[in-house]
Amino acid sequence: MAIWSKRRVPRAESPRLRPRVAPTELTRIDFTEIVPEPVAFLGQAAYIQLEFFESLAKAVATAPDLASKEGLSSAAGVALRKHHELIAELRRLGAEPAEVMAPFAPATDRFRLATLGADWHELLLGIHITSGMLDDYFSRLAAGLPPELGARVRGILGENGASVVIEQQLAAAIAADETLDDRLALWGRRLVGDTLLIARSALRASESGGALGADVEPVFTELIAAHTRRMDALGLTA
Amino acid sequence: MAIWSKRRVPRAESPRLRPRVAPTELTRIDFTEIVPEPVAFLGQAAYIQLEFFESLAKAVATAPDLASKEGLSSAAGVALRKHHELIAELRRLGAEPAEVMAPFAPATDRFRLATLGADWHELLLGIHITSGMLDDYFSRLAAGLPPELGARVRGILGENGASVVIEQQLAAAIAADETLDDRLALWGRRLVGDTLLIARSALRASESGGALGADVEPVFTELIAAHTRRMDALGLTA
Repeated sequence: MAIWSKRRVPRAESPRLRPRVAPTELTRIDFTEIVPEPVAFLGQAAYIQLEFFESLAKAVATAPDLASKEGLSSAAGVALRKHHELIAELRRLGAEPAEVMAPFAPATDRFRLATLGADWHELLLGIHITSGMLDDYFSRLAAGLPPELGARVRGILGENGASVVIEQQLAAAIAADETLDDRLALWGRRLVGDTLLIARSALRASESGGALGADVEPVFTELIAAHTRRMDALGLTA
Repeated sequence: MAIWSKRRVPRAESPRLRPRVAPTELTRIDFTEIVPEPVAFLGQAAYIQLEFFESLAKAVATAPDLASKEGLSSAAGVALRKHHELIAELRRLGAEPAEVMAPFAPATDRFRLATLGADWHELLLGIHITSGMLDDYFSRLAAGLPPELGARVRGILGENGASVVIEQQLAAAIAADETLDDRLALWGRRLVGDTLLIARSALRASESGGALGADVEPVFTELIAAHTRRMDALGLTA
């Protein structure tokens, strides 16, 4: 599903098997020069929030105590609100949400299953790391949407009430169990690859030969830097 | 956990093993004469909504298609909002939600597991029937709360956006599969007993010997009548 285009580069008529130019020959472009197709952008972003909601609902259902359950129910509410606000934007554009989200479901579902982890703490860290990176990523891409829509999308994705709750829960768990940090640090590193692949897959699908991949390296570098800060905040080695 | 008292009947100092009077000797009392203890009432009602949310989140996660998933995500949002609004009322009274809900968790969790059903359609009917009856029940009991609080609680529980969505999903499924109605009719009948037991357990716990059980028979009769209307609306034999 091609959801991106670049302002100055005409689309190839058919997919090519090789890059037209080697990545090193590309000049860097500003990320705002990437123009997401609004409907597909909103569909993918909305479906990803629905998956975060499902993971958070699982975290609510399997929480070790009622105070955690209660806190996480608020976080689940935040993800669900983001989802519904993005769906409202889709409807405003006259799109049928289920149809628009459908092409993104298989890969996103696989991504969710791959990032659920082996227990409640890994589930929580999975949500924290992947939603942190992807909310950040989609907020940056929203800069290429029509200005008013872009501003609203950044407002929707910028709500960080869920990550505050999750971080508190994780910090308390890590403080209470000194065997947890090594395991979670390892898990956190494994999550990065899957998350960057989800982010990149949309870009790659839209550009023949994957040349755009090189252009967005700086953004990916920033996403990883933000990831490192997120892990540091929990005392985990990124 | 005793959460009810009756205006005119002094509480016994200690539990009795037998009713003080036989149920048939009681005069019927108006349901509004039952005075719920606000904090415990809100705790039980809030925990029940959290369980409805968990069941709805399961229905979202296991929905057969994206349009159903999307519709049910709204229903899950309604249950979650009811939960959080009841929690807000608890905080307004200076109570710690997790502590207040804790005594109701074991029985409510067992109730939820008993009403999940064998597949997605039974899960949906289970949510529809049990939330319909219990929202109704707690709304009626709210008449015995301090007037302003009672009015707010009835407003919170009266939001029927979730049941509208669930009813649509069930009606479409029943229309599409002619083997479904007999099975769901049977399942609907089985749900009533468990639901009335959850409703009654709180009352029974507060009154020595269960005498109050007889007083509330008219309310239970009305709950069952409403249940029958709910089943009729789906073309199911109650």
